[in-house]
Amino acid sequence: MEQLNISEVYKAAEVLQNVARHPKLIGVTKINPEAQVYLKPENLQYTGSFKLRGAYYKISQLSDEEKSRGVIACSAGNHAQGVALGATHNGIKSIICLPAGAPISKVEATKALGAEVCLVPGVYDDAYRKALELQKEHGYTLVHPFDDPLVIAGQGTIGLEIIEEMPDVDAVIVPVGGGGLISGVAFTIKTIKPNVRVYGVQAEGAPSMADSLKEGERKKLDSVSTIADGIAVKEPGINTFEMCQKYVDEIVTVSDDEVAAAILTLIEQQKLVAEGAGAVSVAAAMFNKVPIKGKKVVCIVSGGNIDVTSLNRVITRGLVKNGRDCTVTVILSDKPGQLSKVCSVIGDLGANILAVEHKRNSSNTEINGCKLHIEMETRNQEHIEQVKKGLRDAGFQVEN
Amino acid sequence: MEQLNISEVYKAAEVLQNVARHPKLIGVTKINPEAQVYLKPENLQYTGSFKLRGAYYKISQLSDEEKSRGVIACSAGNHAQGVALGATHNGIKSIICLPAGAPISKVEATKALGAEVCLVPGVYDDAYRKALELQKEHGYTLVHPFDDPLVIAGQGTIGLEIIEEMPDVDAVIVPVGGGGLISGVAFTIKTIKPNVRVYGVQAEGAPSMADSLKEGERKKLDSVSTIADGIAVKEPGINTFEMCQKYVDEIVTVSDDEVAAAILTLIEQQKLVAEGAGAVSVAAAMFNKVPIKGKKVVCIVSGGNIDVTSLNRVITRGLVKNGRDCTVTVILSDKPGQLSKVCSVIGDLGANILAVEHKRNSSNTEINGCKLHIEMETRNQEHIEQVKKGLRDAGFQVEN
Repeated sequence: MEQLNISEVYKAAEVLQNVARHPKLIGVTKINPEAQVYLKPENLQYTGSFKLRGAYYKISQLSDEEKSRGVIACSAGNHAQGVALGATHNGIKSIICLPAGAPISKVEATKALGAEVCLVPGVYDDAYRKALELQKEHGYTLVHPFDDPLVIAGQGTIGLEIIEEMPDVDAVIVPVGGGGLISGVAFTIKTIKPNVRVYGVQAEGAPSMADSLKEGERKKLDSVSTIADGIAVKEPGINTFEMCQKYVDEIVTVSDDEVAAAILTLIEQQKLVAEGAGAVSVAAAMFNKVPIKGKKVVCIVSGGNIDVTSLNRVITRGLVKNGRDCTVTVILSDKPGQLSKVCSVIGDLGANILAVEHKRNSSNTEINGCKLHIEMETRNQEHIEQVKKGLRDAGFQVEN
Repeated sequence: MEQLNISEVYKAAEVLQNVARHPKLIGVTKINPEAQVYLKPENLQYTGSFKLRGAYYKISQLSDEEKSRGVIACSAGNHAQGVALGATHNGIKSIICLPAGAPISKVEATKALGAEVCLVPGVYDDAYRKALELQKEHGYTLVHPFDDPLVIAGQGTIGLEIIEEMPDVDAVIVPVGGGGLISGVAFTIKTIKPNVRVYGVQAEGAPSMADSLKEGERKKLDSVSTIADGIAVKEPGINTFEMCQKYVDEIVTVSDDEVAAAILTLIEQQKLVAEGAGAVSVAAAMFNKVPIKGKKVVCIVSGGNIDVTSLNRVITRGLVKNGRDCTVTVILSDKPGQLSKVCSVIGDLGANILAVEHKRNSSNTEINGCKLHIEMETRNQEHIEQVKKGLRDAGFQVEN
């Protein structure tokens, strides 16, 4: 691509000065006790994600003629809202193509920001094709979610803010989907402070950029699957792949359970809501995926647009992973007093009962037996083992 | 009480300079479209609540002799963590008495901050008695959660920060439990800028300060019940009651459903986790409980320590209140194809099915009928009515 110049990032910072929020770093002590970890909370950005920066800057640089025709984008999420707000602020028309199955809340949010929403039957690829069609037909400018130098320059302003606020930072950890954010951040940081390390993080179920870097060429995944839907991208961009090769130190991956644990940690310890894609950087720091021992590290929390229904599920999963929610199954003989005895053993050991399901006649118990499923709030894995042992010691049969 | 002097608040600000976080105001557009609403996010404070400020300042002002004996407090929540952190930072011992049924997560958090935790069988009042006993026995200093001039001065620093950052603020909305926070904030603001309005907000189920102000004397409630457990206080303090009479313009109340809607709004729109007590100020602004039309208003979000299990329940309740989650009951004749037809009507109307319970032989259906409970994601109340009408038009019997 045309070479990105650092002056473009400074120009973007100027344009975004009174448009974007500039969330200050937050110091956190418990993410990884062996490092000094800070968060750059872009989930607190307008529209709930960093995407506003790149989309706004791109739109602001269009010619008057281009502006008069309007812009189009395809996205089910953060990019849609960034483009919608960017266009509305600049007084121009925006059309967003979304797959018809997109969550109602995202469709409504995009409309509320002033965009015209075009729901396309099918999946993302169908919506993208429709966007290209409409672009041709009406002469709209397509705002790409990541593979555009001006979009990348806009995301780079985050890198500027980090090194301005913390000139002695050792490393920055960045979520990676298509690679727009990390390209901008890594380019900016390596240009100004080449000694700062820049690490990228992808989801295990969508490691397109990680795989591509390993192979030395852009790889397209057949399918992606992760709770970090904002970075579930099948193929890196042409520009972003090149920039990651040049400026990024390493890209690692995290599992969905690690992401859930990171989301839960951010909620409980920092009172911040992050989406899966936004929390992968924190997951990488928590679970020692990158070498940060003794270092001063900034994790970019890139977005917070998680569907509240998913949030409920993620919280539960995070609690289970951390040993704080546990369901045990006890086989009881069907006679009075058994349930009370089980509950008293559990209570005496300091676990808090959340739900009880008491089922007779399940197909795999004896004719007079019944199965008791008890969900408890516990302290950690060790505590769970104590409770199970206590039940066995009291003569109950505990499954798994 | 001894008259609080504004110089005490300035002194507290100095002491807290490098100890507390000073979260910047966040501008929000959608809380109330007729006002300019800003948030002071004290949920982002260390320990997740403003309580650190008062507790820390109080502890910092003890004599060396008092410090050497240590401090004691009674609290199941934010005050416990504030005292624990304040004491540990000052290098002194802290004992926190908690009722034995306190949530595991709060007990662990308090211990992690360096306090010795004393679990007392019974309720809060029992734990408080135990704290007084231990205080007498060992000569500890009791750090009161709200009714102490130095604690009040510490909370007053929030008022200072608000008027320094936004000198033209018209009104400040403050959560009220025992009254420590609002006493400090109202005293500070009315002393420096008497024209700024200060409103307090209590939960409908715990209106002790509101009732007391109406009656002109301190009133003790027999019982309190609200999801905003952090402000479920039965009786105002002696000092705080006097200061509220003098400095507060009005105290209003909000319902639990309004609080749930406010928590949900903060999560979805601001990516901030607030506890019930922390969100009552936002609820008051959202539901027009105070006269803020056309005004520049700051809502203090006082804390974010909500149990994640409760968070799940609150989210669900908030979704229901906003018409975004709805369960309809349909009576079906028990023959093939019915469920599929119901689902297709719902899908065609753009609602998203979340859960289905299909039950035969419920005691109040016909012998060949069955009840179908369908939980759906919907857009709003109007959308719910459309779906119900659609089902009725298709010949189904819909309950309520």
